[in-house]
Parts: sequence; structure tokens; C-alpha cells
Amino acid sequence: MPPQIAPVALASIQQPVKQELDAVFEELARVIRTDFRMIADVNAHLLQIRGKMFRPTLVLLSAQAADGVSGRHVRLAAAVELIHLATLIHDDSVDHSVLRRGQPTVNALFSHQTAVIMGDYLYSRAIIQLVDLDVLEPLRVMSRVTNEMTVGEMREIEAHDILDFTEDDYDRMINAKTASLISGACEVGALDNEHRDPLRRFGRSLGMAFQITDDLLDYTGSEDVTGKPAGLDLREHKITLPLIAAIPNMDPGERTTTEDLMATATPTDAQIHEVITIVQERGGIEAARVRASHFAGEAEAELDQIPVSRAHDALRDAVSYVVERRS
Amino acid sequence: MPPQIAPVALASIQQPVKQELDAVFEELARVIRTDFRMIADVNAHLLQIRGKMFRPTLVLLSAQAADGVSGRHVRLAAAVELIHLATLIHDDSVDHSVLRRGQPTVNALFSHQTAVIMGDYLYSRAIIQLVDLDVLEPLRVMSRVTNEMTVGEMREIEAHDILDFTEDDYDRMINAKTASLISGACEVGALDNEHRDPLRRFGRSLGMAFQITDDLLDYTGSEDVTGKPAGLDLREHKITLPLIAAIPNMDPGERTTTEDLMATATPTDAQIHEVITIVQERGGIEAARVRASHFAGEAEAELDQIPVSRAHDALRDAVSYVVERRS
Repeated sequence: MPPQIAPVALASIQQPVKQELDAVFEELARVIRTDFRMIADVNAHLLQIRGKMFRPTLVLLSAQAADGVSGRHVRLAAAVELIHLATLIHDDSVDHSVLRRGQPTVNALFSHQTAVIMGDYLYSRAIIQLVDLDVLEPLRVMSRVTNEMTVGEMREIEAHDILDFTEDDYDRMINAKTASLISGACEVGALDNEHRDPLRRFGRSLGMAFQITDDLLDYTGSEDVTGKPAGLDLREHKITLPLIAAIPNMDPGERTTTEDLMATATPTDAQIHEVITIVQERGGIEAARVRASHFAGEAEAELDQIPVSRAHDALRDAVSYVVERRS
Repeated sequence: MPPQIAPVALASIQQPVKQELDAVFEELARVIRTDFRMIADVNAHLLQIRGKMFRPTLVLLSAQAADGVSGRHVRLAAAVELIHLATLIHDDSVDHSVLRRGQPTVNALFSHQTAVIMGDYLYSRAIIQLVDLDVLEPLRVMSRVTNEMTVGEMREIEAHDILDFTEDDYDRMINAKTASLISGACEVGALDNEHRDPLRRFGRSLGMAFQITDDLLDYTGSEDVTGKPAGLDLREHKITLPLIAAIPNMDPGERTTTEDLMATATPTDAQIHEVITIVQERGGIEAARVRASHFAGEAEAELDQIPVSRAHDALRDAVSYVVERRS
């Protein structure tokens, strides 16, 4: 049983950089402003959702923990969030997702065509924003990261055979798909600084814990809290850690039930509920929790090298937030 | 009747930079090389098609006309072609096109998902390639250009009402969608050089002539030569210059026939053939030819400022090639 402590709120993590974070949001709105109605409509939708601004928070906290936040970091953080938004829009389009955090996706609200073009629009705006900083290093980090993310996305659409997708494959996939950008966000906060490498590694481990928790929530969360229906990954035949970890413990009947679901184009709610129960009973949830904790521990260890400060404490709280969050 | 001269062959335009162009192709293959099978499969398909390499040709000729070609221009030209490929893949996916130059598109041969991700993959590889040049200026040009292209794409999907899409709208659309990258290709060949601005403007006019000719070929070309069925734009309800120019000359019956086609989800071959004939008879083809010649003249005028050389002659030939080509 996990310890009964009050979960860390995102707002308290963001407290040390609250003002700068508001400036990031203003900057974001400024960068994507356009007279062209079709694009402006999508932008308005994106700004209205706003999102958790978790990656910009990491850029700013990382900067503050290393050497202090400047106006450049605000612009950098806006570029990182733009890249994140572009990626979400393309991911949702690739997955034909209709909801994200309880809000309609761009492909659902506008069209698939609009989603492909808007992702490209936002990504190229992000690159313009980074070029305008007049230094190459953030571009070097961010172009490497975004390329890595596309490889992770490709690995994800490849992962549909439960007998042939190992925990190593899963680690490789989420490392590329999710941990890369979170690591990049922490790294670009501390460029030209001795803390760059520890913060980059911190972000890598934090990102792994983040994605494992995300995949756990698909098995344990409720739609009211997460903003998307539980069991969506199973419905879309996505193989994540809880399932991978449970499979070796399943009896032949349970394995057949699971394989049947994966072979059904549109699984029923009953099928999904049954496999979720099997995964829970066969230790898949527990194993994924242990793994998330492992990466959380790695992230915390990297922070030991960073001087103590409010931002340092907030980064430590971010680790707890990532593994304890309910949505 | 157009003058009966032998059309300029692409090969003769490419002659002054033939060796460097082969090096661009090698560089392209090197940049996208990967051990990851899914991506390698798509790359093999793209390299096998190869394409006309028109934009890299312009980078190299522009460099040679301005100040001489270096190894950096070869790497730059490869990045420009990568951006072009990324754009084609997303365009085909957005349009649900199945053929491009007689070859299956990535979305048709692999999947829509693969097309979205591969476009992102190639674009981020292009940015990495540009960052590796260790200067900001090519990135500044290319990020502006790619953003402009997404706006053009958005304008294109918006353009479905023949009564409300003017020649100005069309110019704005093809300027953003096509002329931007062709202009950028010419510009990055001559960075830090007095000929940069004339070559940028040359590329802009050349790109306008290029797209108008492309749109003309959809009305006048045969599938054997162009690699795609004639009348495809009408089938997809795309409004291009021949149609825009013909509409004011149509009688009410012809206009109704045209509007009926635009209102039919899947127009028949007979409908398409009828509207093509109306557009021809009402001067749409001729008007578009005149407009293409106008931009060709603008492009040639810009070249008057560039010193005479083999590359200069080849750029002049490129103008003729663009307006005379059959595919």
C-alpha cells in the first residue's frame, strides 16, 4: 500500500516561477498570433485549453536552479511548449483520438487535414522562435529531441504484437517518445552551465517515470479525472508496461482472453474491463509502479548534484508530482 | 500557338552542377540512413523515386552563379530537398493522394500514420542538418519558408468555393505554398553575397511560374507523361488559375455545370472532361499561360543583375524549362 501523503500539486511546483510562466503563456499567444482566420481559430482553441505547461515549468525551474531565469528562458520555454503542442496534435491525428484532457482534439474539432498542417505550422513557428534567440545550442538540442520523438512515435505504431514487444522495447519507445522532450526541456534551461548534464539526465529519468505513470493511469484512472476514458490504450491495441509485466504471470486462459482483445478490431467494454482486471490481478499495475519509482529515484539522485534552492526543491517535488498524479 | 522550339531538358540545366548534385543525393541517403526498419523502408522508397532534384539544383546553380559551390552548399541542398520531401509526404497525406509522379505515395504504400510521422522525421532531420552547418542564416531562411508553406497549405484546403476565390487569393496561396521554398532554395545558395536578394526574387517569380504550369498540366497533361491522372484537381475540388480565369467568360449553363461538379463529392470522368473542355474554350488555359509567362519574364529580369556564367545560363534555361515542361 502506498504511503498516505497529500499529493504534490502542480501549482506548488510552479510557484517559484509563476510570474515567468505567465510570461511564457503571453509569449506563446504572441508567437502564434495571425490574421489568417483558419489558423487563428485553431490557436484560440489551443490557448483556451492551455494545458499544464509542465515542460515550460521544467525549463524555468531548471534555469532558476542552475543560474537564474532570464527573458531568453521565457522565450525558450514558449518554443518548447510549441513543440509539445505540435507533437500532441500530430499524435492525436495519427491515433484518431477525439479527446485530450477532456477537450476535443484538433483532428476531431476541425479536421484531420487541419491537424497535420497545424502541427507543421506550430513546429516551424517554434524553430523560428529558436532561431530568433540568435544562438545555435537550443536548436541543436531541440532538433535532436524532436527527431527522437518521431522515432518513438514510429516505434509505438509498430508495437501491436504482445508476444513480441518486450520491456526493453517499451523502455526504448517511451524514452524516445516522451523522455526526450522532458529531458530537452531541463537541458535547455541550463545551457552553458555546469549543471546542464545532471539536469538533462534528471529530465530523462523524470520523463520515463512520467510516461509509465501515464500508462498506469490508463489502467487505474477514471475519465472524470484524467479527461479520457479508461482502457483507451487497450481499445487502441497499445501495449504498455502494465500489460507487458502481467503477461508472464497470466494462465493460458487469461492470455487467450488478452490475445482475443488484441485481435478484435473494436473491442467491447466488457472485453476491456476483463483484461484490465487480469492485468491488475497478475501484478501488472504493481510492477509498473515499482518501475516508475525506480526512475523517480534516478531523477532524485541527479538532483543531489544541484545546489539547494527553491527551484531545486520544486524540481524534487516535480518527481513526486509525476509519480503521484491522478491525471 | 506556342513557338515550336525544342523544350529545355532538366539534364542540361543540371549539367554545370552534375557532380555536386550526385553528391547531394549521396548526402541525402547518408542523412536519412537508419537501422530502424520501418523508417528505413520508407527511406528506401523515397530514394528509389529520387525525383527531379529541382530545388537542390537551384541551390547549387545559385551558389555557382554568385560565388562558387562548396561542400557546405551540397549539405545545404540536401537539407532543402529533405524539407521538400517532408512537405510532399504531408501534402499527399492531407490530400489522400495515391500517386505522385507515377509512384505510390507514402500514405498509399505504407499508411496515413506513417506519412504523418515520416514527414515530421524528415523535417526534423533537415533541421539537424542545418544546425550542423554551424550558422544561423540558412535556418532563418528555411524556418520562415516552411512556416509560409504551412500557411499556403491551409489556404489551399480553404479554397473550395469558386465564387469566392479570386486570382489574388490564388496568387497568395501559390506564393506561400510553392514559390516560398523555390525562392528559399535560390536565396540560401547565395547567403552573405550581394546577389542574395536578386536570386531570392528570381526564385519567387520562378516558383510562381512553376506552380501555375503545374496547375495548367492538370488541365492539359496526359497521365502517361505527368504520372498522375488529368483533371485530378477538379476531382478534388481544387480551384486553380485556369478555372478562376475561365469563370467570368462562362455562360450561365457552363457555370452551373462547373458548380455541379464542385458540389459532387465524387465527380464522374464525364463531368470532369466536360468542365476541362469548358475551361479550355473559355480561355482559362490561355490566361494561365500568359500569367506563367509574366512571372517567367520577372524571373529573367532579375537574372540581368547576375554576372554571366554557365550557371547563370542554366538558371535562365530553368525559367524556360519551368514554363515549357510537360511533366
